[in-house]
Formats: sequence, structure tokens, C-alpha cells
Amino acid sequence: MKLLAAAIALLSLFVASSAPADPTRWRDDVRKVAPALEKYGEGTLLGDVWKRPDLSPRDRSIVTLAALIARNQTIEMPFYLNLALDSGVKPREISEVITHLAFYSGWANATSAVAVAKDVFAERKVGADQLPDASPQLLPLNEATEADRAARVGQQFGAAVPGIVQYTTDVLFRDLWLRPELAPRDRSLVTVSALIATGQVAQIPYHLNRAMDNGLTQSQAAEAITHLAFYVGWPNVFSALPVAKEVFEKRPG
Amino acid sequence: MKLLAAAIALLSLFVASSAPADPTRWRDDVRKVAPALEKYGEGTLLGDVWKRPDLSPRDRSIVTLAALIARNQTIEMPFYLNLALDSGVKPREISEVITHLAFYSGWANATSAVAVAKDVFAERKVGADQLPDASPQLLPLNEATEADRAARVGQQFGAAVPGIVQYTTDVLFRDLWLRPELAPRDRSLVTVSALIATGQVAQIPYHLNRAMDNGLTQSQAAEAITHLAFYVGWPNVFSALPVAKEVFEKRPG
Amino acid sequence: MKLLAAAIALLSLFVASSAPADPTRWRDDVRKVAPALEKYGEGTLLGDVWKRPDLSPRDRSIVTLAALIARNQTIEMPFYLNLALDSGVKPREISEVITHLAFYSGWANATSAVAVAKDVFAERKVGADQLPDASPQLLPLNEATEADRAARVGQQFGAAVPGIVQYTTDVLFRDLWLRPELAPRDRSLVTVSALIATGQVAQIPYHLNRAMDNGLTQSQAAEAITHLAFYVGWPNVFSALPVAKEVFEKRPG
Repeated sequence: MKLLAAAIALLSLFVASSAPADPTRWRDDVRKVAPALEKYGEGTLLGDVWKRPDLSPRDRSIVTLAALIARNQTIEMPFYLNLALDSGVKPREISEVITHLAFYSGWANATSAVAVAKDVFAERKVGADQLPDASPQLLPLNEATEADRAARVGQQFGAAVPGIVQYTTDVLFRDLWLRPELAPRDRSLVTVSALIATGQVAQIPYHLNRAMDNGLTQSQAAEAITHLAFYVGWPNVFSALPVAKEVFEKRPG
Repeated sequence: MKLLAAAIALLSLFVASSAPADPTRWRDDVRKVAPALEKYGEGTLLGDVWKRPDLSPRDRSIVTLAALIARNQTIEMPFYLNLALDSGVKPREISEVITHLAFYSGWANATSAVAVAKDVFAERKVGADQLPDASPQLLPLNEATEADRAARVGQQFGAAVPGIVQYTTDVLFRDLWLRPELAPRDRSLVTVSALIATGQVAQIPYHLNRAMDNGLTQSQAAEAITHLAFYVGWPNVFSALPVAKEVFEKRPG
Repeated sequence: MKLLAAAIALLSLFVASSAPADPTRWRDDVRKVAPALEKYGEGTLLGDVWKRPDLSPRDRSIVTLAALIARNQTIEMPFYLNLALDSGVKPREISEVITHLAFYSGWANATSAVAVAKDVFAERKVGADQLPDASPQLLPLNEATEADRAARVGQQFGAAVPGIVQYTTDVLFRDLWLRPELAPRDRSLVTVSALIATGQVAQIPYHLNRAMDNGLTQSQAAEAITHLAFYVGWPNVFSALPVAKEVFEKRPG
């Protein structure tokens, strides 16, 4: 048993060492390779960007998690999952963010996030009662808007690729988007963040407009884009800027 | 020796825990974080998408592996490598898929896939006799088509970036594409899947046409695109849809 | 203590097994899955591409590291970090490459690279005296050029997304780019490599021109693009080719 205990302790050490869960230790590693990175991280990123007033730490946490999951970057997930929970994001919201991104960034991105989140949830004693139901009562659907969307997409792609048109309606817009434990505004924020995070500009107009229809203000959107630059890199954000700008300018004042 | 055995057992446990090789255990993890993801995974994805008639489980396995390798998502590779082998994909075909994607998605993507596949191959006792030769007798080349392609690319980029033009001819089209253990139609399916998986729409017209010239039917192509939505995310597929549609419409009926 | 020692040894083995640090072992793994990949790797890639005269092994190392970090591919980093150090890239330059890419490919990409580089640095006894200062004396700024850039970007996006415009000026062009331990020409080479590596063509014209203004010759740029095909995949490079060609053609001869 002593053997087992020691081996388990060592394994835990190893697992911990691959993730910046312990900030002190982590800071130490960064210092041994890139002292400037520590400076920018502590000063600019955590000390300045995260404290800007136009987007709450809660929203910044959602944006950051969406970016990390969409880019499959598990190394910083333990830190930001904990920061999210400390900033008021509920476990059930995190659960929905992961499920949502299975569809908006790929199944294995969600799988990878689950593998990290299960440990964070276990450490924080998040039980089944704090998770969403698999099949909850859905939010009411705006039938007219959805009928419009479905007709437009069906006309464009229904003959060429019928399967995707069908799943987009049945699984995404008549099910996933109506799951109640993540507000539509937050779901949109996750989606837009994932699009920017992966350089997918073509669908930004639709989803950024939807986000703003769902209650995201322009200054929150602008601040989310600024925030994302640090987590997804300047190039992805600069590719999104002209598109976001056009969305902002075309919306009725 | 007992110590060693115990430590090895623990290490195996740890290694296993990072990959969904054991479905029961894996399902358990998902349930602890995202019960809805389990529902969609069992119901929609494995229970419905994979059973659609227009694309065989074998082809779906090739498409899925191509997507995972192109996106460097090792976490689900053990499960899908096993599923591929169970669905009739041969080890030598998997070997060629990995080699092909070294060139079509980047060297380290192939390296990462090797690291996972070697364990799956070892577990299933796949020996050297089931792998392709490093330098086999190549398939015959359609000289006229290749001369056309080479002339077109050479004219476009031969003066600006001569090296890439040379390697594209010598290593890709006069060597890699002619390796016999993966049928040209499957090689094309892998290439198109990788392009969609990484949001590279510019080369879809050339490679989707080539895939269909190589025997992929339009309904198979459409179904592969639908299938990919789940593994590479809706945005990548929606960026590919207009391009695929145009290819379908322009082909002689 | 014997227990601990044995367990640590085993853990080291496990850690080592996930990275191609030991070429002999690694080659063995590749051979068990994809003999052709070994052939192309030894023959074409290391035996031919790396020896082409138009780009030095040192520059190829920088390009390769930038590609791996930008794509978050840690598996081959130990090998290429060592190759870089053996090819004349200094630890302080590697440190700056990582810090630079935090901004040009995303924070967690830098974090992941730190996690690998710290072990390589430790093995090679790279001490703090071989790392850049966190806040060094900056290189002189070309005020006119920077004023132009800032005015152009400010006019485009200052009203829509003011935060990003501010950080681009303050943190990137008046700080990061002026850090002295990575030459501007190398910093540009890193940036262009990261853009190609992630399929971000929109900013290639600006940064490729900047690279050439900073001293990168056209034949070096062309050779870097050729080199990248192997590390980031043909599709990313073929998407960059028309853009690079146009940059080359438009520059005053």
C-alpha cells in the first residue's frame, strides 16, 4: 500500500507538472525560459487586460474558455476553469460551453476539455446536481426567425449536402441552442469567440449579429475581441476586425 | 519486480486515462462533466450519423481519422483507430493515411499519429508484414494529366518559389500519390477531409474534383462533408459548403 | 528511496516516450507504423530539404520552431529545440521567439513551448544569464514608419475596437518588436512563418514586406516557404503562395 500511495503521489505530481494549476510553480517555469513572458502575463494580461471595465471577469472567463477549447489548448485549462468558477461562471454553464463547442469546434475538442474539467470539478466537489440535465425542457423557439434561417440554408445547400442542412436544423437550432442552462447571449459569445479563435471569419456576421440580438452590447463585443487577441493571437483577431467593424456599422443604431 | 509491475500497471492506468480507449470509463468521465455530450455522442453521432447509408463505416473511419490527424487530436485516436480496423480499414491503409497527411497537414501531425498508432498496432499484433513497403512499386502515372498540373503550377509559382514547385512534382505527384497501398480514391478522400478539417477551402475545388475523378460519388462526398461537421466543427464545414456545391454543379452530369 | 528512484525512472521513461528526444527510439516507433514516413523523413526532409543552400540551418531552425509553436505541436519540439541550439540559435533567441509567438499565435502556445523548452534548457544547463532581461533597453524606433502604421490601423479600427488598436501600438510595436535579443529580421521571419503555419494569409503582405525591409532576401523567403510545406502541410503553403508571389513582384527591384 505504501508503494501504491507513493506511486500515486508521484503520478499526481507528474500530472500537475503538465498544467499550470499551481501558479507559483508555473511562474517558476516561465521564468526559466522566458522572463518577458512572465512580465507580460502578470502585468499586461492579468494585471491590465482582465481588469478593463467594458467586459466582466465572468464574461472574460467564458471568452477565454471558449478560445482554449476551440483551439484544443488543454495546458491552460485548469487555471482558467478555476478562474471561471471563481468569477461566477457556474459548473452547469461550463458544462454547456463544452457541449456547445463539440458542435462549433469539433467533437474531440469537447472530449479534451472533459478530460481536464472532470479533475477540476472533482477537486471542487462539483456533483451531478450542479450539472445540466442531458434532456432538459428547452427554451421557447422563435419559429419565424428559425423558419427564415432554415429556408435560407436549405435553399443554398439542401440539394448539394442535404445531411448537414438537416442536422443543422434538428440538432443545432431546434435543440442545442435552446438548452436552458447557458443563456443565448452567452452561447452566442462562446460561438463568436470560437469563430475568431479558429480564423473562421465567414460566419462571424451571422453569429455576431445573433449575439447582439441576444443582448451582447457593442462595447462588450469590441472588448471580447480585444481580449481574444491575447489568447488566440493577433492574426486571428486582425482577420476578424474588418468583419466585426462592418457588422457594427450596419446594425440599426 | 513487484514494485516495477505495480508502477507499470499504474502508469498504464494513467496513460489509458488520457485516451478514450476504454469506452465505459470514458463515458463515466463525460457524464461527470457534460451529460448532454454523452447523449449526443451515443444518440446522434454513433447511433445515427455513423449508420447513415450513403457512406460506409469504413469510409467514415477514414474520414474521421483524417480529420483527427489533420487537427492533431490524439485524444480520440485510439478509439477511432480501433473502430477503423474493426470496420475493414487495413493497417497498411492506416499507415498510408498517416504518411499522406505528413505532407497534407504537417510533419508533426504524422509524428503524433504514429505515437498513438504504434500502441494500437502493438495491442492488435500488427506486424511488419502488414505494413506498406517504404519504397514499393508505384502505380502507373497518368503522364498527360500530371504534365498539365505541373505546367500550370510551374507557370504560376515556379519563378517565385521554385523549391515548392519541384517538391510538389517529385515527392507528391510522382511519388506519394502513386504509392499503391491506399487507393487513389481513398487518398483523395483523406486529402479533402484534411482540407475541410483545417479550414483550407482554396484547394477544395482541385482535390474534390480529383476525388470524384478517382471514383468518389457525389452522394459519398456530400455525406463525408456532413459527417465531418461533427468532427471538425460546423464552421469549417459551412466554409466548405459553397465551394463543394460549386464543384458539384460544374461537373459534367 | 529505492521505490522512489524506480518510480521516477519509470516516469522519466514515460515522459521521454512521448517526445522524439531519442532519435533511435523514435525511428523505431515510426518504422512500426509508417516505414515510408521514416524514408521521407531521413531522405527528403533531413537529408535534402535541410541541406538546401538558400537558407541556413540556423534560419531553418527558427522557421521550424515558429511553425511548431504556432501550431502547438509539442511532440517534435524537443528534437527541434536541440537542433536549433546545435545550429547556432541562442537560448535568448529561442526565449524571444516564444515570447513573440505568445502575441502572434496565442498565449497558450507560448505556455506549451515553455513547458518543453524548460526541460531542454535544463538538460543543456542554460542558466538565467543566457536569457533575455524581462525589461531590456529597447531598440530605437522608426517613429515615422510607426506613426504611419498606427494612423492607418487607428483610422480603420479605432472607433470599432479601440482596445486592440491601443495594445497593438503600446505592447506590440512600441515594445515587443523593439526587444533587442531577437533581430528584427528574425522576428519578422518568425511572424511570417507563424502566419503561413496557421493559414492566416491576410497579414502576409504586411509582414513579408516588413521581413524583407528588415533584411530577409527574396530567395531566403522563398526557401522558408518551401521549408514550411513540410512542417505545416502543403495546403497552408499553397494558400500563401499567391500572396507571397504578389509581394515579391510588387517590391521595387
